[in-house]
Amino acid sequence: MEYSTIIAVDAMGGDLAPVEMVKGAVDALNDRKDIQVRLFGDKEKIEAELAKYTYNADQVVITHTTEEISCDESPAVAIKKKKDSSLVVALKAVKDGECDAIVSAGSSGAILVGGQVIVGKCKGIKRAPLAPLVPTEKGVSLLIDCGANVDARPEHLLQFAQMGSVYMEHIVGIQDPKVAIVNIGAEEAKGNALVKETYPLLKACPNIHFIGSIEARDIPKGGADVIVTEAFVGNVILKLEEGLASTLLSVVKQGMMATTRGKIGGLLVKPALKEALKMFDTAEYGGAPLLGLKGLVVKIHGSSTSKEMHNAILQCVSFKEARINERIMEYLAPAKEV
Amino acid sequence: MEYSTIIAVDAMGGDLAPVEMVKGAVDALNDRKDIQVRLFGDKEKIEAELAKYTYNADQVVITHTTEEISCDESPAVAIKKKKDSSLVVALKAVKDGECDAIVSAGSSGAILVGGQVIVGKCKGIKRAPLAPLVPTEKGVSLLIDCGANVDARPEHLLQFAQMGSVYMEHIVGIQDPKVAIVNIGAEEAKGNALVKETYPLLKACPNIHFIGSIEARDIPKGGADVIVTEAFVGNVILKLEEGLASTLLSVVKQGMMATTRGKIGGLLVKPALKEALKMFDTAEYGGAPLLGLKGLVVKIHGSSTSKEMHNAILQCVSFKEARINERIMEYLAPAKEV
Repeated sequence: MEYSTIIAVDAMGGDLAPVEMVKGAVDALNDRKDIQVRLFGDKEKIEAELAKYTYNADQVVITHTTEEISCDESPAVAIKKKKDSSLVVALKAVKDGECDAIVSAGSSGAILVGGQVIVGKCKGIKRAPLAPLVPTEKGVSLLIDCGANVDARPEHLLQFAQMGSVYMEHIVGIQDPKVAIVNIGAEEAKGNALVKETYPLLKACPNIHFIGSIEARDIPKGGADVIVTEAFVGNVILKLEEGLASTLLSVVKQGMMATTRGKIGGLLVKPALKEALKMFDTAEYGGAPLLGLKGLVVKIHGSSTSKEMHNAILQCVSFKEARINERIMEYLAPAKEV
Repeated sequence: MEYSTIIAVDAMGGDLAPVEMVKGAVDALNDRKDIQVRLFGDKEKIEAELAKYTYNADQVVITHTTEEISCDESPAVAIKKKKDSSLVVALKAVKDGECDAIVSAGSSGAILVGGQVIVGKCKGIKRAPLAPLVPTEKGVSLLIDCGANVDARPEHLLQFAQMGSVYMEHIVGIQDPKVAIVNIGAEEAKGNALVKETYPLLKACPNIHFIGSIEARDIPKGGADVIVTEAFVGNVILKLEEGLASTLLSVVKQGMMATTRGKIGGLLVKPALKEALKMFDTAEYGGAPLLGLKGLVVKIHGSSTSKEMHNAILQCVSFKEARINERIMEYLAPAKEV
């Protein structure tokens, strides 16, 4: 059978691998009968997990690998040395066109380095940004770049804005997505050297809907659909959101548990709270794609469960169906002349 | 009478000026009989406010000014042109040694520019950072720099670490405060060019307790006492904390109000919630000092009430009593040889 999308899954990457990775893959297969998943990792362990579920065996291929990359080792060295690691072999399958995409919950550094080194950037792409969806009051925004390549130049940020616009329009379904650059004030004259140089490029770019600067306080309010920033700042934003949300909730919980009255009230508000906070659960939004590569590389959180893997695989299918890479190429064509 | 500390108050700066500014000043005077407050602004309006309260008239001096600086005008131009604005005249009083400190809720840009241009930096200080206290699970941390001077150099960050350590030890009372640099990973090799160059300087500095990198997710957890970063990133962290806290709380509230059960529970948890969230109320922690100037300049939020003004004035008294500027000078002396 011809499959619409073939997704490589790094079955050994992540805190809960291979258990949750295999479960997530099976869940995705049972959702979509037209896709195939290739599981890379320890064959015996993977088969033991697969044996727990009912699924169409034709949709699964296992590729046995003998090594694993841990989060403690140098990404660049690991990618080079561990040639039989689940991640490296899976990335090669994407590079060779055997798979359309790869999802991994393994070492972030190794995924970012491996994506660029093994899969490789599309022609004309200067940098491959990591672009997670972040929850907001209004839905989600794409935060681009949160990756490992810091000290970006203005022309990189311009491409991020374009790639991010394509993604938000065709994967998330936002018409004419609003693009803003992270800044420390709303005025055009504000900012550091990078922002001041990037601002006019974004303003002059014909195929994005640039709305100007966004201050960090307006990001959770959903002030723009595509939030452009260089990787250091993007990473700080992403991790602070995670950290602050968990700290605030633990403080609220402690406050409620401190009194009997609070405990009773806490039980009553629990379902409502849970529903409200679901919107801040990043697991709902699949993984973070590394954009601009010859195939799709999706990074999910190290602590991901089957739910994240499941959603990320479906995200890969949408990516292929929406021809994101082809669209990015079309989008960037006029910009090259700038 | 000889006053222990004389504080200039910009009575016209802030959304709620002069009402809340004058009230905050009176509250501080009634706390401390050994201080004097000089109120700068429209004499008639200030007197009308003062008439509402009981206080020792000797402790108050009014200096009439005829202009005000708004948040919409260019800070540099406003500071230069509006020579009879409450902010400029008050800053000059600090420069001339008539006052020890100034508190203003006015235009942030004008306070930052005016502080550096009018009051002036202490000898040897390369940059004056804005250093607000940010709430954490464990108490507060000093986030230094959140100011307007972006694109800092490594030697600036080193001084920030030293000044921040003095402040946390002598104003907040933390013995041997832990200093960390904001980074996108915990390893020494990670980071952008600025962080990589600053790291070894901090590591080699003998008079700070440097613990290495801090990822943004650990800032709300209280991972370090002095959080060193350049102003662009610091500003993003500060504003994202404000924005995310308010968004999360509004989402939680909406969730509770959506059902009858949630509404009843909400009423029950309210006091506990309020108590728990008090720790995230920045008004509790006074204002943000601009460190390294010849006098103390304290910026409070534009929407500040009398509570912020009151706390900020008391903070100025502590600053003077603890001889922070003298201590900073002693601290920096060995570093100059580095």
